[in-house]
This record gives sequence, C-alpha cells and structure tokens, in this order.
Amino acid sequence: MDDTRPVIAVDAMGGDHGPQVVVPGALTGLTAESPYRLALYGDPQRIEEALGGLNVEGLPVSVVPCLQDIDMGESPAAAIRGKPDSPIVRAMTDQKQGKVRAVVSAGSTGAMVAASLIILGRLPGVDRPAIATRIPTVKGELLLLDVGANTQCTVDQLVGFARMGTLFAREILGVAVPAVGQLNIGGEPRKGTEINVETYERLEASGLNFIGNVEGNRLLLGACDVVVTDGYTGNITLKVVEGFARFMGALSQRPDLTDQERAAFGPVLGFLQRNFSYEVYGGAMLLGVSGVSIIAHGRSSSRAIASAVREAWQQILHDLPGKLATTDG
Amino acid sequence: MDDTRPVIAVDAMGGDHGPQVVVPGALTGLTAESPYRLALYGDPQRIEEALGGLNVEGLPVSVVPCLQDIDMGESPAAAIRGKPDSPIVRAMTDQKQGKVRAVVSAGSTGAMVAASLIILGRLPGVDRPAIATRIPTVKGELLLLDVGANTQCTVDQLVGFARMGTLFAREILGVAVPAVGQLNIGGEPRKGTEINVETYERLEASGLNFIGNVEGNRLLLGACDVVVTDGYTGNITLKVVEGFARFMGALSQRPDLTDQERAAFGPVLGFLQRNFSYEVYGGAMLLGVSGVSIIAHGRSSSRAIASAVREAWQQILHDLPGKLATTDG
Repeated sequence: MDDTRPVIAVDAMGGDHGPQVVVPGALTGLTAESPYRLALYGDPQRIEEALGGLNVEGLPVSVVPCLQDIDMGESPAAAIRGKPDSPIVRAMTDQKQGKVRAVVSAGSTGAMVAASLIILGRLPGVDRPAIATRIPTVKGELLLLDVGANTQCTVDQLVGFARMGTLFAREILGVAVPAVGQLNIGGEPRKGTEINVETYERLEASGLNFIGNVEGNRLLLGACDVVVTDGYTGNITLKVVEGFARFMGALSQRPDLTDQERAAFGPVLGFLQRNFSYEVYGGAMLLGVSGVSIIAHGRSSSRAIASAVREAWQQILHDLPGKLATTDG
Repeated sequence: MDDTRPVIAVDAMGGDHGPQVVVPGALTGLTAESPYRLALYGDPQRIEEALGGLNVEGLPVSVVPCLQDIDMGESPAAAIRGKPDSPIVRAMTDQKQGKVRAVVSAGSTGAMVAASLIILGRLPGVDRPAIATRIPTVKGELLLLDVGANTQCTVDQLVGFARMGTLFAREILGVAVPAVGQLNIGGEPRKGTEINVETYERLEASGLNFIGNVEGNRLLLGACDVVVTDGYTGNITLKVVEGFARFMGALSQRPDLTDQERAAFGPVLGFLQRNFSYEVYGGAMLLGVSGVSIIAHGRSSSRAIASAVREAWQQILHDLPGKLATTDG
C-alpha cells in the first residue's frame, strides 16, 4: 500500500488482438522488484482471462476496470468526450491526477493524440506536440518526428521538434551532442519548400548541432540522431522504411531466385528481424504533452507491447516531460 | 544519308563522369541494324576520345559538337536562355525541329525540365508535366509520379498524372488495365490532406482502375502499376526506396553479424543489385511534354545510361507523346 513506484498504465483492450496479446506483452520481464508497477485498463473479465495463464503472484500489477472502449474508426474528439470510462480516457485522466506516470496504448492513434492534448495538455513553450518514432539505422537509431500528428507544420513547429528531438536523443539515446537533420528533397540550403528553406536558416542559427538537409537515401546510413519533417512526409517515410522487412520477406519467395540466393535469404531475414523489426522499437511517442504517451502499433505483437512499456519506463526514469518543459533551447 | 531511323540525342557531357562513362553506356547494344540512331552532343574532342577505345565502324552514331555546357548548380531558366550551344538546349531544339525524337541527359534535372517545357512545350490537355520513375516491386514494377517536377500539386494535376501513368503502364509496361493508387498516410478515403481526399473522389469517378490509397509499407508489394503523389512526397519516397540497397550494403559490413549471416549477405545483395538497382531502370522521364525527355541519374554508370537510352527508345517505339496528346481520359 505504501508502494511509491511509478505506475505505467496499459490499455489492455488496444490493438488488433486485445488482452490476450497486450497483457502478456506488458508483463514481459516484470518482477516483484521491477522499478515500476503496471496497471491494466479494460474489461476486467477479459484481462483476468489473459492473466489466468500467467504466474502473476507477487508481481506489481493491478487491473483498472473500464466498461467502455474506443473503436478504431471513431471520431477521436467525440470519443474523448463521450467515453470517460474507456481505457485511454481513464488512464490519461489518472495520469493528469498523478495516479499513473505514463499511458501505453495500441489503440486508435487519433484517440491517444486527442486524449493527450485534451486531458494532459501541452507543455509550456510547446506550440505543437509531435509524434516521434525511433528508426533503426546502420549505426544505431535515429528519432524521426513528426510522423503523423500534424499534416502541415510551420517553421516554429519544426524548430520546436528539433529541440525536443535533441533532448530525447541526449537523455534517452545517450548521444552527447545529437546531430539534427531536416528531411528534404535535396542537400543544398535552398532546396525544398519555402518552409524548408526558412527552417534550414533557423536551425543553423539555433545553437543545435544542425548538420543540414538529409535526403531519403541517406536517412538510414546513420548520419543523424534526429530528423525533423512534417507529419505527412514523416508518416509516409516511416511506412516505406517499415515496409522494407516485408518487401524482403516477399522477395525471398520469388521463383527467379537461384538456390544459393534462396538459402541466403533466411539468415539475412533473421538479422533484419532481430535488429530492424518495428517490434524491437518502442512504438511511437507523443512528445510535447505534459506526460508520457506511448502509441504502440495497432497490429502489435506481445513483443512490440513489451518494447512500448520499456519506452514508457525510459521516459519516466529520465523525467523526459519535466526536462522538455524546462528546456528553452 | 537516306537513313530514316529515329535519332536519340544523348547529352555526352551530363552526369558526374562525362563522356568516358556516357558514351560507352549510350552505345551499349548498338549495332548497324539497330532500329534507332544515336547522336552524341557535347565537346567533340572529349567525345572522340571516349569513342576512341570503342569499335564504332558502321554503327549509326554521330557527333553534334556543342561549345557550351550547363553546370549542375546553374539557374535552369537562365541556362536555357544563355547557353543555346549546350547539349541539352541544342538537343531539345533539334527535337522541336524534328531532327531527333528523344533527348537523354544525366545532367541537371532542373535544366532538362526547363528545356523541355520552354522548347518542347506541354502536350495539349496537360496542365503540368510530371517526372515519373519506374520502381521495382516484388511482382514487377510500378510507375511513381510526380517525383520532383511540382513540389505541390492540385487535384487536377494529380488526376492528370493518373491518366498519363495509366497510358504509360498500358503502352510500355504492357499491363492491360493498370491499377492506380494514391500514395497516402492511410488507406481510408478520408485520410490525408484535403487534396488527397478530393483526389480520391475524383479518381473513383474517373473511369480509371483506381484501387484506393496506398500506404508506404505496401508500395513495393506490387498491388499497383501506377502511384500518384505530389513531387515533394514522391521525391522523398523515391530516395528512401533507392537508399535501401545502400542500406543493405552497409549492413553487410556490421561487426555484429554472425559468420552465417555475413556469408548470406553476398548472394542477397547480388539479387538486389541484379533486380533492384536504379541502374537497371531507365532513369526518370518527363511525361506531358511534346516529346521524349529522359533524365538519367547524375551519378549514372554506363549501365544506367544504357537503360535510359532503352527507355527513350521504348517511348519512341510506342509513340508515347502522340498517345498522351490524344488521350482525354
């Protein structure tokens, strides 16, 4: 009862597979001594069923019954108002009240963004929150933002994303002086839209470690720790990158492969799966709201949910929202 | 002297490597009986040097001396006006006058687009030309357009791109009823920008075989023959896809590979190189101008130049500009 460990709230109903996949994923690696507790939000009967097959004796996990749920197709703003007893709205409200320190959901991205904005609110000094995602590169990983919160972005917003991304890379990725790039259609300073050109100038004068424009073909080679772009371009870029593993898998079935090539695809796909599967990464995160808000893939496996919980814990551990709030550049 | 075979004009000075790479590339596969002739535009001394090592006896190839050249960084419109004796301007002028039927250059994309627009002009009924490029998929290839001519596009322009792409896929790729998709951040009809939503409605009513929005992760799986998008998004998407081979190459050098994985990368990279290298594809093409205008990669190898000449020949053979001009939907 005096357990003061921070609580991570998990929407047990989110994603394509619900509690049977989310619950074991969330509990992955949890021990009696874990530095955080878990609270599973959702239909109590289905959560208990999912917990039934697991040994949870003595683990710091609790269930928060919710009688409503938000469908994937629902209008986010209406759902936030109309479904106070859905896992996302209850968990976010509990975060606002300090009962939990993070919310993880594989449910509707729109509902997560809306609930975070409406219930938690923006951090001081943040014009627009961004959805950010880690992307594996040849050398490590980078943070790409925005990947979908804002279809169009102003120069101020893009510069703000660069600041938030730099702080994330320093605190969470452990990069002392993160290199920041702007995704663009050419390397030269005057390439791209008017917004690109002005953002380039502003980033050069920002005091950040801005290394210039980055074209899509250099994105995965590891030159940058943080790459900023608008949410439309970022979302399409992210999905093209995520599609590579599936593309390689489909290629391995092609009838025109030689026997040697066919045999070689197995180990290469294994390496890609081990290092570059979206499951290894923590899902997307909303940066710039007053709290921790992690959006796992809708088709998340248990492994992907485990990664999302780990991402939430990293942000709590490093007090990312607190540091984002006090950063002015 | 009475040779009536169509002439393909090649800018011998274009690209990072100039005549030493462009000339042998252009001559690849050329025989005395080839259905087209080649004209090499540029510095006659350097072209003769490049021809020196090749056996061109009896081949249908000629040299058109040009004393000027357009630099990659030059303002395209100024270059077109100020350098009438550059390979791109002379060749395009010769196309306008009917002396040649296509221009291939690995020089400045901007100069090629500007020269095509100013000298050849748009086809009747075409609002904006698009830069299109073939992209290899698991099942074959698709045509992506626009990949850079128009940073922003109107609904009319995107619908026009879908019509031009459909004709290309039918005539050149040999697909009876080409499937058209719109690149977007989600599959549902109302996803994306206002322009995406309206384009979706217009394409549904267009009589084309519109299969809906396509997300980046499905792009390479082969569901579409034609994918339309604005030139900004398309350019970034194209480069991310092109960067994939380089990414795989860099991965093959990673120290954390097992011996088995390291050995397996060789054959897989060989397969990718054989099937998915940009060198195999014909470079980009400008669709919607009154002629054939093929833009090869600036860092083109001889193999890439050979592919670009082949692309030019395909468009001449099928009279693509003539068919695009008479298509009204």
